[in-house]
Amino acid sequence: MSRQSTATPSSITEAVSDSVADTPPSGVSFVRGTRRATTPASDDGVRARLREIVGDENIIVDPNRFEPYSQDAVKEKFAPEAVVFPANAVEISAIIMLANEVGFPVTARGGGVGYTGGAVPVEGGIVIGTDRMNRIKEINFDDLCVVTEPGVTTYDLQQAVEAEGLFYPPDPSSYKESFIGGNIAENAGGIRCAKYGVTKHYVLGLEVVLPTGEIIKTGGRTTKNVVGFDLTMLMTGSEGMLGIITEATLRLIPLPEATRTVRATFRTMREACECVPALTRARITPVALEVLDARALEVVEAAGVLKFPEDAGALLLAAVDGSVDEVEKDGRQVEEILRARGGFDVERAASVEDEQRLWDVRRSLSSAIKRYGTLKLNNDLVVPRSRVPELIERATEIADKHQTFVVNFGHVGDGNIHVNFMCDREDAEAIARTRLCVKESFQAAIDLGGTISGEHGIGYVKAPYLSMALSPAEIETMKRIKHALDPRGILNPGKMFV
Amino acid sequence: MSRQSTATPSSITEAVSDSVADTPPSGVSFVRGTRRATTPASDDGVRARLREIVGDENIIVDPNRFEPYSQDAVKEKFAPEAVVFPANAVEISAIIMLANEVGFPVTARGGGVGYTGGAVPVEGGIVIGTDRMNRIKEINFDDLCVVTEPGVTTYDLQQAVEAEGLFYPPDPSSYKESFIGGNIAENAGGIRCAKYGVTKHYVLGLEVVLPTGEIIKTGGRTTKNVVGFDLTMLMTGSEGMLGIITEATLRLIPLPEATRTVRATFRTMREACECVPALTRARITPVALEVLDARALEVVEAAGVLKFPEDAGALLLAAVDGSVDEVEKDGRQVEEILRARGGFDVERAASVEDEQRLWDVRRSLSSAIKRYGTLKLNNDLVVPRSRVPELIERATEIADKHQTFVVNFGHVGDGNIHVNFMCDREDAEAIARTRLCVKESFQAAIDLGGTISGEHGIGYVKAPYLSMALSPAEIETMKRIKHALDPRGILNPGKMFV
Repeated sequence: MSRQSTATPSSITEAVSDSVADTPPSGVSFVRGTRRATTPASDDGVRARLREIVGDENIIVDPNRFEPYSQDAVKEKFAPEAVVFPANAVEISAIIMLANEVGFPVTARGGGVGYTGGAVPVEGGIVIGTDRMNRIKEINFDDLCVVTEPGVTTYDLQQAVEAEGLFYPPDPSSYKESFIGGNIAENAGGIRCAKYGVTKHYVLGLEVVLPTGEIIKTGGRTTKNVVGFDLTMLMTGSEGMLGIITEATLRLIPLPEATRTVRATFRTMREACECVPALTRARITPVALEVLDARALEVVEAAGVLKFPEDAGALLLAAVDGSVDEVEKDGRQVEEILRARGGFDVERAASVEDEQRLWDVRRSLSSAIKRYGTLKLNNDLVVPRSRVPELIERATEIADKHQTFVVNFGHVGDGNIHVNFMCDREDAEAIARTRLCVKESFQAAIDLGGTISGEHGIGYVKAPYLSMALSPAEIETMKRIKHALDPRGILNPGKMFV
Repeated sequence: MSRQSTATPSSITEAVSDSVADTPPSGVSFVRGTRRATTPASDDGVRARLREIVGDENIIVDPNRFEPYSQDAVKEKFAPEAVVFPANAVEISAIIMLANEVGFPVTARGGGVGYTGGAVPVEGGIVIGTDRMNRIKEINFDDLCVVTEPGVTTYDLQQAVEAEGLFYPPDPSSYKESFIGGNIAENAGGIRCAKYGVTKHYVLGLEVVLPTGEIIKTGGRTTKNVVGFDLTMLMTGSEGMLGIITEATLRLIPLPEATRTVRATFRTMREACECVPALTRARITPVALEVLDARALEVVEAAGVLKFPEDAGALLLAAVDGSVDEVEKDGRQVEEILRARGGFDVERAASVEDEQRLWDVRRSLSSAIKRYGTLKLNNDLVVPRSRVPELIERATEIADKHQTFVVNFGHVGDGNIHVNFMCDREDAEAIARTRLCVKESFQAAIDLGGTISGEHGIGYVKAPYLSMALSPAEIETMKRIKHALDPRGILNPGKMFV
């Protein structure tokens, strides 16, 4: 099978997450972006065999119904040749064996709300929808774990375990739509990671269908397990290129009793960021630690959500969790530290309603930002947390240089900042300038000791930039692993490597 | 190069950790256990080239000086053909390129106190000692990380970061001797893992010399990093078979202010273990949660360390950490829970001296146990934590059936129990019976949903048992990765796979 990639720098695009664009920015219309007209997945004989595997009612071959399975949050469309909805690992194994036999690409799809095209069939072939594999099989309080199929939304999983007094911390902002299988495949993050770590820190074991069709169980249901190479960790974050996750056993912790949020504005981003090590010095590890830059505050004000003091140049949201007593005590201390470091207009939540209200500013951003452009290039840069002020300064300088509007906000507790360059989806010249901003901001993150993706992954969208972040030897090592496990290049071709 | 393995079931042996055995249990004398008389590493020309790479003073070729580099805590001896002490990754790269060119095995060595032979050159060749690479390069408070060379002991690393108010939680019991590089290569555990996770949860980035001699940097210094496959996690726990770690960036957290220990005895192990979910229900996650079974208590009593109440059938040590206020409050609650669940002879530490004294019972075990046999087969079984009582019951039944003395103790908070079968190092028949116990206890752990190693790894010692724990497809996947990265089988041959 050819593994000609279709990714181009033009595809580094991310739409405003909750709007569907009719005309994708890179001019890709609703056809596959591949140079190959069809693959064997379009053959009637092959489709008949797929039908046998999953049943008539679980396959889509009508091109008019492909659109929802052709895209993710990037909103660029690459049509599959068929979409199948298997019930279990055995059916997925049969599909992949067929793919190896006759040669067509297979792309697994969860909620389909990624930001780098991981679930998008850029080289055609078939999409495997995991929608039917949506059972939570077991929540085990004594063993502090949950066993789940991949097609459960992260939100539903969280609700289910919280009902048992347990807690699954990773919380990507797409959690109401994204499937836990996709979260594992992308090693998703979120706002609680500075305290609790990312998805991979909660994956104990997996059932995976390999690119050759073999089904393996990796890891188990214990945190300690040193039997062989850590395939669980290799599969986690492998973006559907090394295997398809059909079951996961996830580590849980006791649900914290309460959270307490403190919000403060600062004259400068540097002042806001200097609170971060100050909190560490006080032995406080907030569950969330979010900053918004001056532009973000302008955006929120312009939308009429909130009015900030005139000299507010940055905003910090800090939340602690733990027992009721602890959050009371830590909340007070956070407030003191923020005030001592120049925070003003400080508010500490006194009720659950307060908590909600204090977070409005953050929540309103995604919607408020839309008036600054119809196309948002949202990049999840990450730097060591001490370098966050510099990253935001550089991103702003880059945007100014290229006459582009930028809004920076994100997770200062773990150095993961969303740098959002805004432009007009119809303005080719503005898009070109904005793409320059993206590339230069990637370089800035790397120069500051960070990298080009903290949460979203590479997919086809960031593939052209992989070599900015990784050495040829590191990329070659990854390719060797890919080839060893997927010699025919069946699983999710056209991603990560260009 | 041949990859003929020398591992046999006879090698499933672990010596009493602090005694050097003169006559190893499997009868291996102080010669290499390989069938090959020599490898090219014995050639004068090759040694001259090694000398050029590391310098005259950093190579040992005198067989009389090989003994310390021929063994680990298992005390079985396999002599290398040369031992070299490179200064950095570039020298290690040159050595490995030479190994690929002329064909000899290379085994990396840290502190050399492993329990499965990971650092032992079972097929000869050269040993790379990382002793000279012992600098802590940077402790960064603001970024919550430490950058270190591999040859620093875990204890020294902990002391250094604690002096800055930071905390590196993983704490294998060998921490005063084991090197951090070896800890990463083995994904080491310890008693604090139930709360804080294992070594892999703290590895942010690595510098690694690959089996082909290429030097790569994986990961970085941020918790969030989803750029390509997770080579950092693949290298962690790969037992020196996929690369040699030459630098590590480790995640740190703020140092907890205080700890508080509560000790209680129970009539039965089941009663003691039932405290574990009860603590979770109270939203308490102890930093340490250790059990000792009835035999362990006998051993401690016989050594005159402590006297227990007559009906004591198990002992539980629970420690909480956090702020001074928190540990006071949580410590009281732990005491209440232990008492409510049948705990008696309960003591809660009131001072640092108390803390030390309460842990004496656990600390004294290793030494006290020696009077029950000159050979201890110490197995680090792991099961879901709800299955710990059954595991201990079955291990005891198995020992009784084979007339062997067993002592069970360990980390009930994460299901990792040290099942120690005792026998006489000179009694071949007893050793044979004890090995049966080991194998049957492995099966018991697997039957209970656990596995054969929680902390020690596979190496050559557990290699004969790998197929009990993993499916052929899983082992084959690991072998494919090994072959893709190490096509000539240079790094640490004779381990993991038989």
